[in-house]
Amino acid sequence: MREIIYGVNPVREVLKKRPDRFISILIYEGKERRDIHDIIAVAKKNGIKIEFVDKWRIDRLTGSNKHQGVAAELREFIYSDIADILDSARKKGDKPFIVILDGIEDPQNLGAIIRSAHCFGVHGVIIPKDRSASITGVVYKASAGAVEYIAVARVVNISRAIDELKEEGLWIVGASSEAKTSILDFNFPESVGIVIGGEGRGIRPVVMERCDYIVSIPMKGAISSLNASVASGILIYEAMRARIKNKT
Amino acid sequence: MREIIYGVNPVREVLKKRPDRFISILIYEGKERRDIHDIIAVAKKNGIKIEFVDKWRIDRLTGSNKHQGVAAELREFIYSDIADILDSARKKGDKPFIVILDGIEDPQNLGAIIRSAHCFGVHGVIIPKDRSASITGVVYKASAGAVEYIAVARVVNISRAIDELKEEGLWIVGASSEAKTSILDFNFPESVGIVIGGEGRGIRPVVMERCDYIVSIPMKGAISSLNASVASGILIYEAMRARIKNKT
Repeated sequence: MREIIYGVNPVREVLKKRPDRFISILIYEGKERRDIHDIIAVAKKNGIKIEFVDKWRIDRLTGSNKHQGVAAELREFIYSDIADILDSARKKGDKPFIVILDGIEDPQNLGAIIRSAHCFGVHGVIIPKDRSASITGVVYKASAGAVEYIAVARVVNISRAIDELKEEGLWIVGASSEAKTSILDFNFPESVGIVIGGEGRGIRPVVMERCDYIVSIPMKGAISSLNASVASGILIYEAMRARIKNKT
Repeated sequence: MREIIYGVNPVREVLKKRPDRFISILIYEGKERRDIHDIIAVAKKNGIKIEFVDKWRIDRLTGSNKHQGVAAELREFIYSDIADILDSARKKGDKPFIVILDGIEDPQNLGAIIRSAHCFGVHGVIIPKDRSASITGVVYKASAGAVEYIAVARVVNISRAIDELKEEGLWIVGASSEAKTSILDFNFPESVGIVIGGEGRGIRPVVMERCDYIVSIPMKGAISSLNASVASGILIYEAMRARIKNKT
């Protein structure tokens, strides 16, 4: 499968990190922006095919009109495995900090969560093969290119992945709006896997029962539910805060 | 101007809180879900016109196929003013907790931020008339109906609004990725207005210079920027945390 990404920043970010993934770059002929010239220069240096096309071709390819006149076709995203993620933590001399997504289905949310994970120093994100968004062009764009900088592992069985992490000494912390423990009173462990459930339905019972702790974000108000990517961002931020505190 | 909202939960939430705003409800005839029956019952009780239509009519009206077979046409959203927001804090016996958005342009982000604000007990959100998303059907849906539960004021001049809040004793805290003060080391004041800038461009200088404090969210990684609604959610969460701590 090929992936389509679009927009100046996403194309530039992937181009910087993984020029080998590019099949071709499509540019709308009418565009004369300086940042597109930079993309052309880097693409030429890397021998990537550039096509100058009409705007409607990019509209159609991307299914969007927010492409800023640039799109690219990429070879399929290469997933990491759990060992790669643990290795990357080890190499940095860090205790592992992993995010496990038990079925995030909206690619915008998946992209935003991967972006937050990268910004807060997470070593890798684990997603399931089924009932989950996978890494597509929409996810790239929503992640602002962060998918190129963080390992993403795709596993058949999330429960088994959690068992593997527990054997490696990670504490597993699940998030649920029904948990009695508020993150305000919870001290996140340093070697940690944070489990976040799918939009609306939350963590599945078979995954929940494997969590060492279950925590909630305290809320008030008539509507007590955050957007999935906002809730995930807050959980990852809190875990990061604990990691920093534990070091000082 | 009329607003279109769609999806079972958004329609139900607005129906519960503001049945007076409904012009009509459109339902896809093929739909026989129990939750749509509930909507019909409440609509009938409130004398709201219900139309049973073909799916394509709802597709076309909403410009989406994620409407779950239900859409509604509403009278225009009624904005509050700053005095209403301050009043609502006073009535609850709370110190004011306000979010000021200096030009959030994406309606998905605006909706998600309003949702976070409501969940964390913010009394009201202030948005500018120009260069900002306003409250539309997309914002409703992204806010999961939270716009009906929190006051939103729309002002001509954000700087003047901030001056007004300062006269009322609020401390104004702006967010900028370039600020030296990290929110990890910052103790949010209890009477607080949090200022968040537009996507990409941040807080405008004329607004920035009115802030009493400027804080940043600590990040590492090659891409050091969070999604605007995630960053806002974390800032509002941190301010809420300080309010709870100050009370205990």
